[in-house]
Amino acid sequence: MKAELVAVGSELLRFGRRDSNGDWLTERLQRLGVEVTRRSLVGDDVASIASAVRAGQSSADLVVLTGGLGPTEDDRTREAIALALGRPLERDEEYATRLRGLFEARGRTFKPEQARQADRPRGSDWLDNPIGTAPGILCRVDESLVVALPGVPPEMRRIFEEGLVPHLSGRVGQGLARRSLKIGGRFEASVDEQIRDLYGLDGIEATILTGREGIELHLLATGGTTAEARARLDDLELRLEARLGADIFARDDETLAQVVGRLLIAKGATMATAESCTGGMLGSLITEAPGSSGWFRGGLIVYSDDLKCSLAGAAPDVVASAGAVSEVVARALAAGARERCRADYGIGITGIAGPGGGTPDKPVGLVHVALAGKNRTDHWRIRQIGDRHLVRRRTVVFALDRLRRRLLESREPEGIV
Amino acid sequence: MKAELVAVGSELLRFGRRDSNGDWLTERLQRLGVEVTRRSLVGDDVASIASAVRAGQSSADLVVLTGGLGPTEDDRTREAIALALGRPLERDEEYATRLRGLFEARGRTFKPEQARQADRPRGSDWLDNPIGTAPGILCRVDESLVVALPGVPPEMRRIFEEGLVPHLSGRVGQGLARRSLKIGGRFEASVDEQIRDLYGLDGIEATILTGREGIELHLLATGGTTAEARARLDDLELRLEARLGADIFARDDETLAQVVGRLLIAKGATMATAESCTGGMLGSLITEAPGSSGWFRGGLIVYSDDLKCSLAGAAPDVVASAGAVSEVVARALAAGARERCRADYGIGITGIAGPGGGTPDKPVGLVHVALAGKNRTDHWRIRQIGDRHLVRRRTVVFALDRLRRRLLESREPEGIV
Repeated sequence: MKAELVAVGSELLRFGRRDSNGDWLTERLQRLGVEVTRRSLVGDDVASIASAVRAGQSSADLVVLTGGLGPTEDDRTREAIALALGRPLERDEEYATRLRGLFEARGRTFKPEQARQADRPRGSDWLDNPIGTAPGILCRVDESLVVALPGVPPEMRRIFEEGLVPHLSGRVGQGLARRSLKIGGRFEASVDEQIRDLYGLDGIEATILTGREGIELHLLATGGTTAEARARLDDLELRLEARLGADIFARDDETLAQVVGRLLIAKGATMATAESCTGGMLGSLITEAPGSSGWFRGGLIVYSDDLKCSLAGAAPDVVASAGAVSEVVARALAAGARERCRADYGIGITGIAGPGGGTPDKPVGLVHVALAGKNRTDHWRIRQIGDRHLVRRRTVVFALDRLRRRLLESREPEGIV
Repeated sequence: MKAELVAVGSELLRFGRRDSNGDWLTERLQRLGVEVTRRSLVGDDVASIASAVRAGQSSADLVVLTGGLGPTEDDRTREAIALALGRPLERDEEYATRLRGLFEARGRTFKPEQARQADRPRGSDWLDNPIGTAPGILCRVDESLVVALPGVPPEMRRIFEEGLVPHLSGRVGQGLARRSLKIGGRFEASVDEQIRDLYGLDGIEATILTGREGIELHLLATGGTTAEARARLDDLELRLEARLGADIFARDDETLAQVVGRLLIAKGATMATAESCTGGMLGSLITEAPGSSGWFRGGLIVYSDDLKCSLAGAAPDVVASAGAVSEVVARALAAGARERCRADYGIGITGIAGPGGGTPDKPVGLVHVALAGKNRTDHWRIRQIGDRHLVRRRTVVFALDRLRRRLLESREPEGIV
């Protein structure tokens, strides 16, 4: 099965914007065994969108448009599909009424143009949008499908998974299985060197890249049945685990925070944070995981030096003599987080995220991370490379990965192990 | 002048790959005053490439293809252009001989397929490649240009600058200026309604969309000189400011945190946070702004209820009776942040981010936000729509925007006003 993606929106044709919906759909469709054969980015005009729909239709079995389904003047995807398919646009009065009800229930005025979201080409079906007002649209044209999804990423993803995927199963031909493994605390080149000889075996294509929480190894197995492709991936995964051990921290969509949460729950333990340069980013990353209240107690954002003392209990003379960015302060923060938040583990972070604030002794990118448990406090002095965002991001991932590795040790007295 | 970009290469249609040549060309062409109206990513097959060339030619003055000009089997851009333009592919024997000489001078074997790089559609010109073997190709078709550049980024860029730009100057002619305005605390549809009559005036194209920190209005002025286009944008911006007032919070790349920081510095004031459901995300957003240590004191992440009391000073009996997600607790958190972190302003956030934890009385998406200053504490009860990430994201943006609006009031006693 072949698919073409059409991203609609003049803003996507400006520098600095990225078609992230298309990136996501490409990955997701590939996992389902659908080959993406073309991607187009078009502006908000009916003729361009319609021409992309026609081009897609002539060569692919599935055309997925994203964006241009809102209530405003420049939302023209509905009209364009109607034009391309030669079907009139019709208002679904029942849905328009439901939409009006939704607005009124929330105390918002329902303006006439909102009703445009109830228009669809004749003979098409809605794909329900449980978290927004514009539903997706599914048009069947002979054997092929033309689908429009809203441009808001969470809405697009939800409708894709819940509304569209059921229509695709049964249409996909050859066996295909995908898996990704996430690898923490390593550089891409060193992972690549360690496992390179395993690439390309058994019809498995491997792509290695740097993701949000570390190195990601994307594996794609094709050929045979889907079950056979999956079995070949299982086999390769075992071989990769034998090489990389605890460096592999997650698989597919699991996040580092979810993995740490799972390990903490297994030990009946909790954690807390005290952050300086990362300013709450570690807490934010942790609490992205639903259910994190079961194992994350809370934290202290000790951005100014006096708060490192008053909130986290660092000694003022130590902060003054060693400096806020120092091993001793990182250790004090970790201990302070643990005590003040009454947790089993405390993480302390202090560093220089930049762009200003660096000195020859303490350059931008220097970060001290400490991890306090009942019996010992570990410390790492790291030198991050990259801009402010990257320094912060890599630091919180590093810190959480260190807790994960410590939780994997069996010697720790806390919890059930 | 309008341009369409066609990126050729099946690898670009795999997950994790990015059309970085297209990103670069988009920026470069925009700076030259050329509007990019469509981008396509196509695989290595002649039919797809040719169809993209024809589509581009029918609506733009310039079509730029990147990739597919090498010596191998899957380099098919030359053939595809010839097919699309209905011109035969011809070998430039003189260039083939020069290429062979280049190879021999470097002691490399000249394989027969290398000579394919000397093929071009009849009537086209070479664009010299000083750092590689595949030259660019320039075809004139009536008033328009079809250009093929190699996919290797340094070669593509060099040929673009040295070979193509001279052909573009003189064709560009029209001025072009861009601006974006960020609008806080409003829904897209309501902003659209309020300013719709200003769209399309003075040759200015407006696109409205929901960005990371609120509504973004992207404005593109074309026609006249660039200075004239810019002056028309200045004029429109004044009219938009008259309508939207304080709802406009930033322009172009400025972030909400930077704006709040600027306002706090002007008042000589500081802020602090106490977050429950957002778990540090507000602190993280604030400290993304370089220099935030000048106005952000720190914060408390009070994820568990007992920490709302011990860290932020909420009364345990109040938390027990009103519940953690309540106006009174939000107010206590804001006051606690202000006092414990010794700041002029404190923001308190408590809510239910989901997916679990909702009740009929307190559904997922319910959030209480409070803002404490010296003389008064404001409170908002909001109902966010969306998944966990969106509820959290919209909440921190909402809270920071409320502080921004309060800082714009002149009645506040703090600071220098």
